[in-house]
Amino acid sequence: MTNELNNYFDEMLPALEQEMRVVLQADGSPPDSFYGMMQYHMGWVDADLQPTNINSGKRIRPVLCLLACQAAGGDWRQALPAAAAIELLHNFSLIHDDIEDASPTRRGRDTVWKIWGIEQAINSGDSMFAAAHLAMCRLIERGVDPTVVVQALCRFDETCLALTQGQHADMDFETRDEVSVAAYLQMITGKTAVLIALSAELGALIAGAAPDIINHYAQFGRNLGLAFQVIDDILGIWGDEAVTGKSAATDIITKKKTLPVLYGLSQNAELRQLYAQENVADGFVETAVTLLNQAHAHNYAADQAAAYSQNALNSLEMAQASSPAAAALHQLANMLLKRNY
Amino acid sequence: MTNELNNYFDEMLPALEQEMRVVLQADGSPPDSFYGMMQYHMGWVDADLQPTNINSGKRIRPVLCLLACQAAGGDWRQALPAAAAIELLHNFSLIHDDIEDASPTRRGRDTVWKIWGIEQAINSGDSMFAAAHLAMCRLIERGVDPTVVVQALCRFDETCLALTQGQHADMDFETRDEVSVAAYLQMITGKTAVLIALSAELGALIAGAAPDIINHYAQFGRNLGLAFQVIDDILGIWGDEAVTGKSAATDIITKKKTLPVLYGLSQNAELRQLYAQENVADGFVETAVTLLNQAHAHNYAADQAAAYSQNALNSLEMAQASSPAAAALHQLANMLLKRNY
Repeated sequence: MTNELNNYFDEMLPALEQEMRVVLQADGSPPDSFYGMMQYHMGWVDADLQPTNINSGKRIRPVLCLLACQAAGGDWRQALPAAAAIELLHNFSLIHDDIEDASPTRRGRDTVWKIWGIEQAINSGDSMFAAAHLAMCRLIERGVDPTVVVQALCRFDETCLALTQGQHADMDFETRDEVSVAAYLQMITGKTAVLIALSAELGALIAGAAPDIINHYAQFGRNLGLAFQVIDDILGIWGDEAVTGKSAATDIITKKKTLPVLYGLSQNAELRQLYAQENVADGFVETAVTLLNQAHAHNYAADQAAAYSQNALNSLEMAQASSPAAAALHQLANMLLKRNY
Repeated sequence: MTNELNNYFDEMLPALEQEMRVVLQADGSPPDSFYGMMQYHMGWVDADLQPTNINSGKRIRPVLCLLACQAAGGDWRQALPAAAAIELLHNFSLIHDDIEDASPTRRGRDTVWKIWGIEQAINSGDSMFAAAHLAMCRLIERGVDPTVVVQALCRFDETCLALTQGQHADMDFETRDEVSVAAYLQMITGKTAVLIALSAELGALIAGAAPDIINHYAQFGRNLGLAFQVIDDILGIWGDEAVTGKSAATDIITKKKTLPVLYGLSQNAELRQLYAQENVADGFVETAVTLLNQAHAHNYAADQAAAYSQNALNSLEMAQASSPAAAALHQLANMLLKRNY
């Protein structure tokens, strides 16, 4: 990370954490079990609800929101409630995703459902969903105009609905034999891009930017999110295990329908046959990767990622921001986009 | 039901249904599976997503909201988005409750999780939660002042959080040996009373009533909800099966910790011993009811219900409404409170 972006992170992260802690009533004393489950998921307490401090994610979305606010001519502190809301909303979806995917661990710890059971975990996700909205309500106390707050809340909820629509499609795809590239792109738009788009959009909205500028920020976030996801898809097959931290074979072994795979399946009958087999035989990964390479699936996905990246940077350009915060926003985008793929 | 209340129901219910249909994109054509699951739960389509019309609940809460708006000097049509939001929120909680309680049927039909699986049902509940918020956003289009809309949205979300807090306590109680009467009352406040309170409160808020009047409506709803729940608890043990439609023995056989039982347990050691036994022996119901009667549990609960009922009617009195809508509101309250217990 460059120094400029680093400085913003150092300034923003503690303020963001404090904003989220107020909403989830985390004042350092041991919480009751209701708030405790949410605080556990956030990495603030352990499973016995005793204070701790666990690495709890990169907080990319909220920082994007704060930087967008500052870059669009506002004061990032005014956007803190929205940034907190976005991060809490993201964490609501993680609590429910972990149940839906039957994932027993996240960030090296047991998931909420693993500790407190599926029933309480569903409810804890619901609580986090409500808490995310309550975080948004604090915009009023920061002096944001009620008309802007209503607009922000309604865009927030349109995004919530799109998120669940993306998650619906993702689960639906697992039961389907064929998924089109177009349907896949629509799914990752809902699952990933809309929340990143909202982060940038709300920052600009709260800054009081003009509608076309707000839209440029939204498009910046949307394309950034799509590029990020497609790069993740590429790294999930061809990534360097030492860099990505996860086995490159996983996405192939689990036959995950990511963009390169869907494109490869649409191009190569041999790959379709291979993926149609019930069991994963010896040499499956090597054969699959060879066939994906023959179908130019890497090139295809890399071209897509490059196009989304370019769209993102163009939109940021059109937002015509030139402050240090805008520079930091560029740096953040480059950090996410310039991974080796 | 009296004629006055009936007339309001006849006028309001179709408008309410239409408002909810717009939010859930139900225009009569078969929906996609995303909207389909929500429309199925609402009783508008069958499991094959074909149009149908199933009895889907009494819509007490939204009608209460609309009547409160009219009684407080407003136009009930302006409150339609809030009424729709409250009913959708109630239905969100039902979708998740059915998973958490492992209930395979509701209103004589398979529950959402029973048809589409737990994973999709969790997500469908989340979608309904988001949709409830989007319903609220439509207050702006009805010309409600943005300051009032923000206030309404934030009270809505405080209520969402309280609902999940009540549900958390309810599930928590099942794992506990001892539950105090005070803890129980707090739990049913969250699970039942806050949403009924919100219904009346938002109606008055949207009508533009003064803060103290809004508060009287809220207290009316809160006490009405508490009275209703305690009466339900009484009928669950001593109710006439022919009237209540469910076996009076159920609450006893399942050892449900309702108000009369918790009071009885606090008063009678023999009842505590009986409930501590793992299995339900022959004659369990008769013995339990005899011991509850010895502990005056019926009287205790009936006194509580009467006190809450009186508080509700007093609050409505203090709201000083005297229109036909206010009369209908009285009739609705009496309908809910004057069940034979």
